[in-house]
Parts: sequence; structure tokens; C-alpha cells
Amino acid sequence: MSTATLTAMTGQLQLEATIGGYEAAAHAREHIDATYSALAELVGGRPDEIALFDNSTHAWNAAFYSLPLRPGDRILTGRAEYGSSVLAYLQVARRTGAELVVVPDDADGRIDLDALAGLVDERTKLIGLTWVPTSGGLVNPAAEVGRIARDAGALYLLDATQVVGQLPVDVAALGCDVLTGTGRKFLRGPRGTGFAWFGPGALQRLDPHVVEISAATWDGGRGFRWAEGARRFETWENSYVNVVGLGSAVRQAIDLGLDAVARRAVALGERLRRGLDDVPGVRTHDREAERCAIVTADVRGRDTADVAAALGAEGINVSTTVPGHNQLDERGVHPLVRFSPHYYNTVEELDRAVAAVAAIARSAG
Amino acid sequence: MSTATLTAMTGQLQLEATIGGYEAAAHAREHIDATYSALAELVGGRPDEIALFDNSTHAWNAAFYSLPLRPGDRILTGRAEYGSSVLAYLQVARRTGAELVVVPDDADGRIDLDALAGLVDERTKLIGLTWVPTSGGLVNPAAEVGRIARDAGALYLLDATQVVGQLPVDVAALGCDVLTGTGRKFLRGPRGTGFAWFGPGALQRLDPHVVEISAATWDGGRGFRWAEGARRFETWENSYVNVVGLGSAVRQAIDLGLDAVARRAVALGERLRRGLDDVPGVRTHDREAERCAIVTADVRGRDTADVAAALGAEGINVSTTVPGHNQLDERGVHPLVRFSPHYYNTVEELDRAVAAVAAIARSAG
Repeated sequence: MSTATLTAMTGQLQLEATIGGYEAAAHAREHIDATYSALAELVGGRPDEIALFDNSTHAWNAAFYSLPLRPGDRILTGRAEYGSSVLAYLQVARRTGAELVVVPDDADGRIDLDALAGLVDERTKLIGLTWVPTSGGLVNPAAEVGRIARDAGALYLLDATQVVGQLPVDVAALGCDVLTGTGRKFLRGPRGTGFAWFGPGALQRLDPHVVEISAATWDGGRGFRWAEGARRFETWENSYVNVVGLGSAVRQAIDLGLDAVARRAVALGERLRRGLDDVPGVRTHDREAERCAIVTADVRGRDTADVAAALGAEGINVSTTVPGHNQLDERGVHPLVRFSPHYYNTVEELDRAVAAVAAIARSAG
Repeated sequence: MSTATLTAMTGQLQLEATIGGYEAAAHAREHIDATYSALAELVGGRPDEIALFDNSTHAWNAAFYSLPLRPGDRILTGRAEYGSSVLAYLQVARRTGAELVVVPDDADGRIDLDALAGLVDERTKLIGLTWVPTSGGLVNPAAEVGRIARDAGALYLLDATQVVGQLPVDVAALGCDVLTGTGRKFLRGPRGTGFAWFGPGALQRLDPHVVEISAATWDGGRGFRWAEGARRFETWENSYVNVVGLGSAVRQAIDLGLDAVARRAVALGERLRRGLDDVPGVRTHDREAERCAIVTADVRGRDTADVAAALGAEGINVSTTVPGHNQLDERGVHPLVRFSPHYYNTVEELDRAVAAVAAIARSAG
């Protein structure tokens, strides 16, 4: 998080403790509204199409579990799909009798567009795609998938968790019906924040799977009317400290310019990848074609968790991938060490990371 | 929030911004675990029976929407039920063909235990009760309802949102299967926190309505195994700043002693109620029998929202009740001004509130 975001959050937290929760939220009304506006601007939608959640999984669930499905309906997805979404597909397929169909990869490791177009038919109710996987630098052709989804009349649910704040996003160009994201990754927002953009096609086709007092208005009898727009998917009680922090982070990303952010982040990713590939015993595993700032690698003879811990001890924060978070990936390469450089990283920091990995690789030799 | 809670949260937030999100969470591991332990101690359960959420509605939904229901099954609830829960009952009744049965009040305004016992039969799959309503000082006989639920073999879902931090809670004495609560009310925790305790009966009977990577383990094929205990109802990504803050607030409540807290809060509520009842033109509406610290009132000839705003302008924070948050209440008394004194309030503050209401009432005359 940036200092501006941290300051905004600390200020809101202090205000809550001083004047009370409801009172602090009323005081921050403009900032809270600005978070919706900033997210709308970030993805190219309208503020009333934005819903806030406490994480991107809740945001994704709010869309996916709200899609009515019947026996024989089909869900199409790719091999890069995020682990939680895959489990949700399996659960709902079992519950409803719908079928999960996994589209193969193309030679570049992306979702195979020809195969997808061939699999789509009138049974296809949903195309679910993880734009950039949790487990590597792959960038799926999200807009091309959008065109196929539009032609097929299927709902298109796009998981942009690893994309927002890293690459430019435009829901019109993507042709998606729902786009979900998190605040805490490349957007540099607080943990415990997620959001979804719901387009007109989503509002038309989704029947929110849960309801509460701000999502709907009681009709005085045994029914209720859904709230206008995306708010019908929210629950009203929120951490406004986090909402204010998220708004600050999104505004910062917009002000920096997502094109510039993407150029630098992707270039840093490429530099890191080349550096790691030059180290004996180290292999990167990010698919070819378009690649983003996420870099994954393994070190021959060394346990991935040990490599991550050794790097962490030197102040180099990395994560690790696990097979259970990317169940449909057939390559069998996980676990891997995951590096996520961003625009604020320096070339010197990347070179230091490569040198640290090289030292670990040598010690394994 | 207390200074201790604020300091814990600000420290964790600063740590996240300084060393990174995953790293700060790892650093706070003991504090995060302590939040589960403190909540378990607060309600008389085990830490592995606690699940954390971003609000009490999500906590309640995680239980309610996970109950398998069929046409003809019955949900029994009382007239004090919280608005969001009522909407959820209506939605699920329509979706599944289950029936919502509203148990009448007794002469004291509590759920009528004889009527409840008479309505319970083999069709009863759930008894849902709001222990203390959002809209008044009523305390429902939660333990007596628990005995009826146990005899009937129905799942007992107890909403303790307005209770935790105000009155002592003991899930064994209550005989409930699930108990839900929020951090931000009488517990003095941060906004954006909620929790649920899931007893053995709940784990046995509930089939979590959503799944994600920390709630279940992929089986390598087309299935998964639920995580042990209550964690199967959580989503893993959390605001750990809020989790640490919640733990601090719960520990503080335990250290103060819930018996002492309840004695003082309830006594302050009674004093406020008597004071308001003595003001010409002002009526309190809290049901007889056992009453808690929540006090509701109206001022003859004055709009409730105006009264609340006028009090707010004098630094007296109150809330208002609305019919849509308490749809089954047949008294037709909402909207009301809601006062929620707590142990930290002084008698002088209450007297000042009564004087302020009296001035408003005179100005309406």
C-alpha cells in the first residue's frame, strides 16, 4: 500500500474510534462513493454497475452462484482457471446436473479459441475464464473469448484478479458480462477488499443467490424487489476503512495511467524471467505468447517452499504456487516460486533477486 | 473501539504497508489464532468451531443457505427476526418449496414458547431466532427455544448480533447449533467483522452453499473434501487488520467480564428508559419482561429521523429503526429512535440525552 492509501485508512479508522462507526461512514460518504466511481473508471463501466465485497472470491461467487442452471446445461472454462472457481464449478455441477467442460490449451498455453468456438452450443450457459492465472505469467485472450461468448449468448464471467492494477481493463472491449477483481494485489489496495462489475446482461440473467436488507426492498408481504444495479449483490455492512483505502489505491492506479503501469510491470517481468532463465538449474514456466509481470520458476534439487523461505529471509517477498489452486493445469509443474514485480520495483531489485536465486541454485548443486 | 483495539489495528496496517500483506499476516499468526480462541471463549465453544466473516449477515447466510430444504419442510421463526433473515427465509421458501411459519409473540412480546412447542413437528427443519432484535430492548428466551429445538431435532440458528459483548453467551446452555454475531456493536470491534460458532449438529447437517480453496481440498478428480470444523464456511482472504482488531475487542470484553458488562449496560438501559418515559410526549417501546441495554422511543409530533439528527448535532449518537428491518413485527411502531448505551457511558451522559430529547419534545409541542 502507498503512503496515501495508508494515511486515508488510518484517518478513517481514527475517525470511527473517535466519533462512531455510522457517523464516520456518513462523514466519508463522498470518499465511499468515489471508490465506486474509481472502480467504474478503472474497468470502463458505470458506478451503479460496481459491487464491493471483502475479497475477489466473494465477488466471483456472487455472480457464479446466482446463475440458474439445469441438468444438461454446460459451463465452459479453461485450464488456467483459479482453484476456488474450479471447486465451485464441481460443486454446482453435482448440485444441478450441469456439466463442466474444460477447453484445451493452444500451443502457446492459452485457452484454445478454435476449440472453444467448436464446443460452444445452445447448452452453453456460462463461459468462465481466469484472464491471468494465479500460477504464472500467461495472459489469456479475454476479448476474443468475449466475442465467442457474445455470439453464443452465454454469460461471460471474467476473473481479473491478477489483472486489475497491472494491465488496462475495458469491459466493453472485453465483451464480458461480469468482471471480478481484488484490491490487494496489483492495485496495491488493502487486504479484505474485492469487487465485481456487473453489466446489463448479468443483471438480466443472474438471480442473486442470497438476499439481505440493502440488496432488496421488502414488498410488505411475502416478496421483495431487488435493488437497482449491482448493489443487489452486496451485503451492506462493510469495512469502510477498507473501502476508503481501496478507493485511494484505485485512484492512484488511474492517475499513474494503466498503460504506463503495464509497460513497466511487464518489462520488469520479462527482465526477471530472462535473468532467471540464465541461471543454471533454474527454469521459468510462464507460457509463451503474451506474458505479464507474474514470473514462476523452480530451482533444480530445491524444495519450492525452501527457496521461497530463503528469499524471504533476504527481504525478497515471493509466493509459491500449489497444484490445488490450479487443478486443471495439465503440465504438472507446480509447486513453483512466484515472483510478482510491479512498477515500483527497480531493476537493481530484480538483479538482486536473480543473484539470490543463483546462490540458492548453487548451494543445491 | 478502544485505544488498545485501535492501536492493534493501526500497527497491523502499518506492518502490511511496510513488509507486505502475506508477510504481515505470517507475523500476526498468533494474534489471528488468538481471535478464534477469544471468540470461542466468549461463546463457550472451541476455536475450530469458529468461522470469521466480514459481517454478521454473511455469517448467518453461511449457515442458513447451507441447510438442505425440500418442499413441505418448515422454517419456524419469531416476530423479532432481523430483516435480512426474513428476506432470506422468503427467498429460500420460494426457491425450495419450504414453508416459513411465524410463531406469535407471548403477552410480554417474546416468542411464545407454548405456541412454538405446539407448532414444532417432523416437518420442522430449522428454528431461526433473533435473540435480541435490532429494533428494541426485548430479550428472547433463547435457551428455552433451544430445549424445544433439541426435542424436535431441528437445527437451531441463533442470531446473537445484538447480544455479543452486551450479555453473557454460553452455547451449551443455549442449546443452539449455530450462533452468529458481529464485531462492531456491543463488542466494540471494527466494522467489517462477523463470526459464527458452528456446533457438531451444524457440521453434520449443513452442506456449505459455496466452496473455495481453503474451505475444501480437491480430491484430484471431480470432487473435494470439506475442511475440518467451521473453516469450511469461510473464504480464506481476509482483512487481517480487522481480524486482529476483533481479537483485541473480544479479549477486552472477556477481561472486563460479561456478567459485569451486562449488569451495567442493562442498568443504564433501564435508567434511560425510565428517564425517557418521564418526558411528556415521549414513549419507549421496549417489550416487557427481560430487557437489555437497547432503548427505543418516539417523540409525539416529531419525525424520527429529525429527532435522530437533532440528537446527533449535540454529539448524542443514536440510530433509527425502520419497518423493513423488522417485517414480522406486528405492532406497527417503527420508525423509532434507538439508543444503545454501553458500559462506558456515564449516568450524566444518559441524563443529558434525556434532557435533549425533552427539549425536542417541548419544541414539538
